[in-house]
Amino acid sequence: MSSLAFTKGHGTGNDFVVVADPDGELDLSDAQVAALCDRHFGIGADGLLRVVRSAAIRDGAEAAASGAEWFMDYRNADGSAAEMCGNGTRVFARYLTDTGLASIDEGLRIGTRAGVKTLTRSDRGFEVDLGAYAVEADETLVRAKGLSVARPGVGIDVGNPHVVVALSSDAELEGLDLTFQPVLDPAPRHGANVEFVVPADPLVRDGVGAIRLRVFERGVGETLSCGTGVAAAALAVRHWAGAAAPDHWVVDTPGGTLGVRVAEGRVFLSGPASLVFTGEVALA
Amino acid sequence: MSSLAFTKGHGTGNDFVVVADPDGELDLSDAQVAALCDRHFGIGADGLLRVVRSAAIRDGAEAAASGAEWFMDYRNADGSAAEMCGNGTRVFARYLTDTGLASIDEGLRIGTRAGVKTLTRSDRGFEVDLGAYAVEADETLVRAKGLSVARPGVGIDVGNPHVVVALSSDAELEGLDLTFQPVLDPAPRHGANVEFVVPADPLVRDGVGAIRLRVFERGVGETLSCGTGVAAAALAVRHWAGAAAPDHWVVDTPGGTLGVRVAEGRVFLSGPASLVFTGEVALA
Repeated sequence: MSSLAFTKGHGTGNDFVVVADPDGELDLSDAQVAALCDRHFGIGADGLLRVVRSAAIRDGAEAAASGAEWFMDYRNADGSAAEMCGNGTRVFARYLTDTGLASIDEGLRIGTRAGVKTLTRSDRGFEVDLGAYAVEADETLVRAKGLSVARPGVGIDVGNPHVVVALSSDAELEGLDLTFQPVLDPAPRHGANVEFVVPADPLVRDGVGAIRLRVFERGVGETLSCGTGVAAAALAVRHWAGAAAPDHWVVDTPGGTLGVRVAEGRVFLSGPASLVFTGEVALA
Repeated sequence: MSSLAFTKGHGTGNDFVVVADPDGELDLSDAQVAALCDRHFGIGADGLLRVVRSAAIRDGAEAAASGAEWFMDYRNADGSAAEMCGNGTRVFARYLTDTGLASIDEGLRIGTRAGVKTLTRSDRGFEVDLGAYAVEADETLVRAKGLSVARPGVGIDVGNPHVVVALSSDAELEGLDLTFQPVLDPAPRHGANVEFVVPADPLVRDGVGAIRLRVFERGVGETLSCGTGVAAAALAVRHWAGAAAPDHWVVDTPGGTLGVRVAEGRVFLSGPASLVFTGEVALA
């Protein structure tokens, strides 16, 4: 039994155990990650971020070749490897910059299994370039507990699949029972995260669109905040609003407020990131 | 903003932030405790145990006078002060003995707001004397989501109030939806924790009774394990079983297995207690 030093952090309540392993010497099994992420028996988190040099992890070859020194090895709370996590990238950037492992002054490029992502400082904390996105042409019907009838949703791909549904009021949003998984028709082959959004009234103020949202993450359930879901929600409402829609959006989630920016066919997500405590845990 | 050193521990999944404050110098506000116990934005726990000398806290006067050196200042996750916590006493004893602050060889007496409690080592880890108990004469009807009809429950007082309901099978226990609060008729003035139990078949083996349980804690919801609820459940089944019922019980909870022992009108709870990690958190 050895001891593992870690830092716990979160971005709008989406929380992570951060472990520094610059030289890639730490080989955590799925069971070990799951034990660390258990909220009663372990440290507790939505996932684990291993901070490893791109050159020291097989999945980091492309990132290393392109000069991104650090790789975000993201694991879900069940231990499985995940491609990307929008909120996670900000916590990752917070860790690298607070500990002095990297500078963000010229932009911070980090490797992920979904390619190299670039982070910059923003008024909200950090902004990450999530890359290109796609709005799907076909409608998906969404049934959810608390909604009397099925609603049309729009599919948005921001590296992972989302279906976004517009609701008419805050009361309708609060009346949703997301302890039950929403049903999608047709069902996407690999599932999708589902975002329920309420556009603000008026939708746009001083050139900035505003929405509220709740999200059901596939395989997880309702979460306080899902970074890519926030981006997808803003993109969907922007799509519905048509040609005059703004490129800047403010999105309120149960875990906090995030910003979304659209530019040149790419979507950018900005928000806070905090390191909450440091610790040392026995590794079984 | 100062820094606070802490230890995180749990007893059968009932988890606590443990803070050493021998001289009673730490005055945490309700909001600070709630922030520390928040599972996404803080450390995350069911409650906070402050380790303080009985002589250094006003509520500890009686404990200090009776020679109990240490007082368990237990706060709920919302910051409110609580009287007692069965699983908490074991984690408290684990902390005192592992850190060398106290010895348990002759029994460890700790102050709580419900009086001085005595702990000893047991095969399961630690055993705490929960004191005298009472079985109520009048029946309470319990309605719960997942049960087609109301069931009779028996009231048990082990320092705090419980209503225990027997179910007929594991399938019935698993079918309960405890995201909804059970309804009690008549409703106890201050509410009650509700335990749903399934007696083993055969109930008694080698002189030890066995039950499975799920518990709904008032003001909290379903929990992995409730120490006094486990004791109450064993007492209720022992009551139903009549004169030949054993004094030793094994109780399986979603968080782990606990032991209950009845002797001379008192009830004793035994189980494991673990310290999981140490840390340092910024105190806002």
